[in-house]
Amino acid sequence: MKYNFSAGPAILPKEVMEEAGKAAINFNNSGLSILEISHRSKDFIAVMDQAVQLVKDLLSLSSDYEVIFISGGASSQFFMVPMNFLDENGKAAYVDSGVWANKAIKEAKLFGQVDVVASSKDENYSYIPKGFSVDSQNTYLHLTSNNTIYGTQLHHFPETEVPLIADMSSDIFSRAFDVNKFDLIYAGAQKNMGPAGTTLVIVKKSALGKVRRSIPSMLKYETHIDGGSMYNTPPVFPIYVSMLTMQWLKNNGGIEAIQKINEEKAALLYNEIDRNPLFVGTARKEDRSNMNVCFLLKDSSQEPAFNEMCKSAGCVGLAGHRSVGGFRASIYNAMPKDAIQVLVDIMREFERKNG
Amino acid sequence: MKYNFSAGPAILPKEVMEEAGKAAINFNNSGLSILEISHRSKDFIAVMDQAVQLVKDLLSLSSDYEVIFISGGASSQFFMVPMNFLDENGKAAYVDSGVWANKAIKEAKLFGQVDVVASSKDENYSYIPKGFSVDSQNTYLHLTSNNTIYGTQLHHFPETEVPLIADMSSDIFSRAFDVNKFDLIYAGAQKNMGPAGTTLVIVKKSALGKVRRSIPSMLKYETHIDGGSMYNTPPVFPIYVSMLTMQWLKNNGGIEAIQKINEEKAALLYNEIDRNPLFVGTARKEDRSNMNVCFLLKDSSQEPAFNEMCKSAGCVGLAGHRSVGGFRASIYNAMPKDAIQVLVDIMREFERKNG
Repeated sequence: MKYNFSAGPAILPKEVMEEAGKAAINFNNSGLSILEISHRSKDFIAVMDQAVQLVKDLLSLSSDYEVIFISGGASSQFFMVPMNFLDENGKAAYVDSGVWANKAIKEAKLFGQVDVVASSKDENYSYIPKGFSVDSQNTYLHLTSNNTIYGTQLHHFPETEVPLIADMSSDIFSRAFDVNKFDLIYAGAQKNMGPAGTTLVIVKKSALGKVRRSIPSMLKYETHIDGGSMYNTPPVFPIYVSMLTMQWLKNNGGIEAIQKINEEKAALLYNEIDRNPLFVGTARKEDRSNMNVCFLLKDSSQEPAFNEMCKSAGCVGLAGHRSVGGFRASIYNAMPKDAIQVLVDIMREFERKNG
Repeated sequence: MKYNFSAGPAILPKEVMEEAGKAAINFNNSGLSILEISHRSKDFIAVMDQAVQLVKDLLSLSSDYEVIFISGGASSQFFMVPMNFLDENGKAAYVDSGVWANKAIKEAKLFGQVDVVASSKDENYSYIPKGFSVDSQNTYLHLTSNNTIYGTQLHHFPETEVPLIADMSSDIFSRAFDVNKFDLIYAGAQKNMGPAGTTLVIVKKSALGKVRRSIPSMLKYETHIDGGSMYNTPPVFPIYVSMLTMQWLKNNGGIEAIQKINEEKAALLYNEIDRNPLFVGTARKEDRSNMNVCFLLKDSSQEPAFNEMCKSAGCVGLAGHRSVGGFRASIYNAMPKDAIQVLVDIMREFERKNG
């Protein structure tokens, strides 16, 4: 038995992986693999329609929004967002909450003026910048809702009259929020939605078509909306597995149910970090992420022994990002509470042996 | 038993689909699915390294070339090629051999001057334009090596001093050719290389870095070369299945062996089309594709009956593209000769019943 705490690509529900494995050999009892069927086939069109509908259902999207599945990862959204939204003479506000926010800022500067309204770089991004103001002349305010590397999460989206755009790659579908504040939301699939290879984009129709630069067809959101995410051959299998994962979430009670479980899972682990005298959390408490739990051993010389104990118990993917060090337990939707209990038990045993 | 003649996504070797199905549940006996492991894990780095090495081995690439796996399909290469190669004041030559070549031309016009040196539009792209000249001032000559929709294939690449760039999406790895004439070759995976979701790019290092426009990081070939196709999270599963497919090809004798089989397969089907008085091929004989075989029933009212007979025998994906009509048998590397014999037998039986 393995417990997969990887930050992404990350754990998916066991039943989803089993269903995906079967479909790679024989999809829908068609005698064909999902890997070899046409994206224009009845069977795959049904998958795509269902994937789009599941996003709409899970997030209770109004008809103001379009849902597309494209490729290129969140990294491609870093430039597609300003390319499609920010005019050469316009400006956009960005919050610098970590490495990924920084990359988004760097790409946006190619297209217009960028106003970095707040940053937590001064303390190695261990907190979420708050209390800043945003000039209403900005076309949008760009946020990273969860910072995978540092284990911080935006628990309250800023109150501002400027429309929000957010990278929700690492916490989409993990909690309820008010979608209507957003002009656009994007998320690479490979954390909470599915395997690597597709990117979800949710966009407010009325916000599109306002820039004047010429944009290649594949880089216009309208192209993919008009083509129903099939302007060109879509990443069939990643979209299929994402659909299965969203179906699993819906069958298990949707966002409301998973949010409660996610809060319990995170509390279980943070409580142990705070109680256990050998460990310390790295993120400011009020900004702690319910998806990525980052912590250190106070005595870093104990790391090899703790790693060994985790490995023996089947816990994998716990190494912290190099810029933070220590440990990171990524506990996305698909991570069962039992697995977190296993990790907590190891921490307790480690304390008994080494405390 | 199904015989999958789809144009793409298309048939893959049976053993590849079985291996992929197993890996989606338990990869390399790790107790983890290929869908949930980190792209930075030892196991996936080995997959990526092997995929790159297989491309180099299969095509006998010299060290002048870099191999990357990215996403966005050939449709993204339509704009990435001119964005990275064609300066605002430069010009590039394009051959218009079909719908996809046309889309490449349309995107290139956003970046510089485009010289359409030849077209076969006058006869619905049923032949390959030949005998044209290319001004040596052109930065490159863009070709589509195989036209999936019309069943035409470039059997001899033009002799010119201008470097070649080619969309080889539908015939990469199907035959030998002189790579050294090319500055860049691209191919969406989903025909001859793997499932939908990744794009192979082979690029001559010395041809890069010559344009002056500012390019978003994700759209620069150098970014993906420097990052070893892992600048951002790559499409893990599509690359894995592509690696398996290339491994299968290498184990079965590589390009030399498959080219011979592909020629035999195509001859078997074209001979029947030419012999059978009920059918007629749509492409000019000298330009016929060994990958996509397009043909019509002379009496189109017989189509439903022929379709029914194909369906009963398990042959699927035979509908011609709407712009050509009739039938299209896509017989990529993974299609066994036996399956083509099944189709030929149906055509003969159809002749006996309806001739």
